[in-house]
Amino acid sequence: MQKQIIDLLGVGSIGKQVIDIVVKIPQDFEIHAVSLSTNDQENQVILSRIKPKLACARDIEQFNRYQKQYPTVKWVYGDEGLITIAKNSASNLFINALSGSIGLLPTVAAIEARKDILLANKETLVMAGEIIMPLVKKYQVNLLPIDSEHNALYQLLQGEDIKTVKELVLTASGGSLREYPKSELENVTIKKVLEHPNWKMGPKITVDSATMMNKAFEVIETHHLFNIAYNKIRTVLHDESYVHAMIHFIDGHTKMLMSKPNMELTILNALYRQKRVQYEEPVTPSNLSFKPMDTNRFPLLELGYKIAKQGGLMPTIMQAANEAAVHLFLTNKISFIEIERIVFETIGQYQNVKNPSLEVIIKTNNEIIQSILKQYERG
Amino acid sequence: MQKQIIDLLGVGSIGKQVIDIVVKIPQDFEIHAVSLSTNDQENQVILSRIKPKLACARDIEQFNRYQKQYPTVKWVYGDEGLITIAKNSASNLFINALSGSIGLLPTVAAIEARKDILLANKETLVMAGEIIMPLVKKYQVNLLPIDSEHNALYQLLQGEDIKTVKELVLTASGGSLREYPKSELENVTIKKVLEHPNWKMGPKITVDSATMMNKAFEVIETHHLFNIAYNKIRTVLHDESYVHAMIHFIDGHTKMLMSKPNMELTILNALYRQKRVQYEEPVTPSNLSFKPMDTNRFPLLELGYKIAKQGGLMPTIMQAANEAAVHLFLTNKISFIEIERIVFETIGQYQNVKNPSLEVIIKTNNEIIQSILKQYERG
Repeated sequence: MQKQIIDLLGVGSIGKQVIDIVVKIPQDFEIHAVSLSTNDQENQVILSRIKPKLACARDIEQFNRYQKQYPTVKWVYGDEGLITIAKNSASNLFINALSGSIGLLPTVAAIEARKDILLANKETLVMAGEIIMPLVKKYQVNLLPIDSEHNALYQLLQGEDIKTVKELVLTASGGSLREYPKSELENVTIKKVLEHPNWKMGPKITVDSATMMNKAFEVIETHHLFNIAYNKIRTVLHDESYVHAMIHFIDGHTKMLMSKPNMELTILNALYRQKRVQYEEPVTPSNLSFKPMDTNRFPLLELGYKIAKQGGLMPTIMQAANEAAVHLFLTNKISFIEIERIVFETIGQYQNVKNPSLEVIIKTNNEIIQSILKQYERG
Repeated sequence: MQKQIIDLLGVGSIGKQVIDIVVKIPQDFEIHAVSLSTNDQENQVILSRIKPKLACARDIEQFNRYQKQYPTVKWVYGDEGLITIAKNSASNLFINALSGSIGLLPTVAAIEARKDILLANKETLVMAGEIIMPLVKKYQVNLLPIDSEHNALYQLLQGEDIKTVKELVLTASGGSLREYPKSELENVTIKKVLEHPNWKMGPKITVDSATMMNKAFEVIETHHLFNIAYNKIRTVLHDESYVHAMIHFIDGHTKMLMSKPNMELTILNALYRQKRVQYEEPVTPSNLSFKPMDTNRFPLLELGYKIAKQGGLMPTIMQAANEAAVHLFLTNKISFIEIERIVFETIGQYQNVKNPSLEVIIKTNNEIIQSILKQYERG
C-alpha cells in the first residue's frame, strides 16, 4: 500500500483514536490536514503530535488567534474551511469523524476530489445515501465506514456472493439505559445516559445508542453501503457487544464477526482497507447472548425503518429532529424521554420530497434544527 | 457445475444422508457406485432408491446372493471391491463415508484416478495425512472434508489470507457423557454413550466424541488440510453445538461459523463445493457458551496433540488402538473407561517410524487391531 496522506475532520472520540493509531505508524500514514475543536488545550496537544500542514479552526475568532500562535500551519475556518480541507490536493484519504449533519458536504467534496473515504459520520448516508453512493461509483473512490457493525459486515462478506445473503443482522447493546424501566426514563440524568456499558464514544452517539436512533441510522447506512433491501436487515439485542454483526446465508449457515468492543480495531481495519495487521490478542468471551429487539422500548428504531423505506427527504427530517433534540438534552433543555417525542412530532409536521437535491437536503435539515432549537432556547 | 457422477463408499449415518440429499436433485448428482452394509433390508431400500450401475457387497457370501437378486447391477465385494469402485472411470466425485481405517486405501486409489474427494472418513488423514496431501497436490484434485468443523473452517477462510490467522478453534460439545462425573464412567452403558446430546451420528464417532478422541482426530485433520502448525489449533467446549469453528486473526478480529447441528447442511455445502444453495432457515440461538477444554476429563485429546506432533507412524498406532478398543466397547467386551487405558498402553508398546510408507501404515494398523481384538476375544 502506498503511504496514505490523510485529511482528518473531527477530533472527538474517533478522531483522537485515529491520531493515536497513525502517529505510531508514520511509514504508512501521515495527517496532512485536520479540523479542530473548541478546546484550546486539546488542540495544542493535537497540533504538536501531528504537525499538520493545513488546519481548520472552528470560527474566525479561533482562526485569528491560531494564525499568530501556529504560524507554520496554513489556517482556514468554519464550514467553508472543512470544504477547503476536503478539496485540498495533497492528500488521498479523507477521514470524516465529524458528528452530525455538518459532515455531509465535506464528504461530497472529498468524493469529487477523488479521495478514498473513511466515514465515521453517520449522518452523511442517512441524509443523502441516494446521492452519495452514485457519486462514489461515478468518481470510482472507495468508501469504507468506520463503524464496528458495517466494518464487520464488510469482513463477513469477503469471499461471499451478496446474492446468497438471506439476512444481515446488526447487534445492539441496548445502550446505557438498558437496565432502566421505561417508566423511569423521564428523570434520567445526562451523566447516566453518557455511561455506555460497553463502548467509549462521543456524547451524541452515546445518546443515540440509548434511544436506539443510532441503530436506525446504521440500518439506513447498511441499506446504502450494501445495496440491500430493508426487509433483509435485522437488529438483535446482544448484551456483551462482542459480536458486531452476523450474516445468515440462504443455505442455513451463519457467519459472525467478533472482537472486543474497541474502536481502534475497526479504525485500523479501515485504515488498511481490510488488510489484517498484527494488533492485539483476540478474545473469546465465555458467553454470548442474543435477544429479539424490543421495539416497544425503542420506538425510534421502528420509526427509523418506516422512514427509511419512505426514503427521499424523510430520513433527513428524522435526523434533523434527532440532532436538535439530542443537543437540547445534552444542554439540559429537555428530559431524555422528550427526544423521542420531538422526533415523532417533527416527522408529523413535514411532507416528503422524492429525490431531493443536496441543496434541499441541507436547507431542510438546517431549517428544522434551527426551528426546534429556537422553540426551546427561547423558553 | 457439470453433473457430478458419484461413488459413495459407506451407507452409515453420513452415507444415508448423502443419498437423501442427492436423490432430490438428480439434475446435479447421480450415484454411479455404492458400497453396502450387512443389513439386507436397508440395502434393498438403497438399491431401489439410487439404482447404481456398480455396487460392492460386504463379503463373498453377500456377493453371491446379490448377484442373483440384483442382476442389472455389476457386483464386486470386500476391500478389493472398494478399490475397484474408487478406480472406476465413470464417476468424477468420490465420497468416502466409511468408518475406520478401511477408508484409507480407497481414498488413495480415488485420488490417483483423479477424482475429487469428499472425505467423511477421518482415519484417512489421521493415519496418512503426510502421504495424502502431497498426492492431492500431485494429482490436482480437490479434497473437501464432510465434517462440520472443517467445513466451517473452509467457509471462514474464504477471502482470507491464511498468513493472517492467529488461531483456528474447533468447538466440541463434550459428547454424550459431559454431565457424568468422571468417577461414574466405569459403569456407563453403551446405550448412554450413544445418546449424543446434539448430533445424530454413527456409533463409532459417537463413542469417539465421548472420549474426545474424535476431536484429536479433527485437530490432526485440520493440521493437514490447512497446512497449519499444531500450536495454532485449539479446541473449546461449546455446549450448544451451534458454532462449529472460529478463526482468530492477528488483528484482533474473530470470525465464527454457526448453523444448526445438522450434517445435511455440511454435506450440501461440500457437494456444491462451498457454493451456497437455498436450503433451510438459518437460526440464532439465544445463548452461546464457551468453556476451556477440560484436559483432565479428556486425556485422549491431550495425548492426541502429543502423538500428532511426533507424526510418522504414531498417529496410526493411536488410531488402531482406539479403533480396536471402541469395537470392544461396542461389542460389550470392555467398559467405556478401558478405551482410554488400551490406547495409552498400546502407544507405550510401539516405537515411532518416521515417514512410513502406505504399506507400513496399513500393516501396522491391522496388526495392532488384530492383536488387541485377539487378546480380549479369547478372554
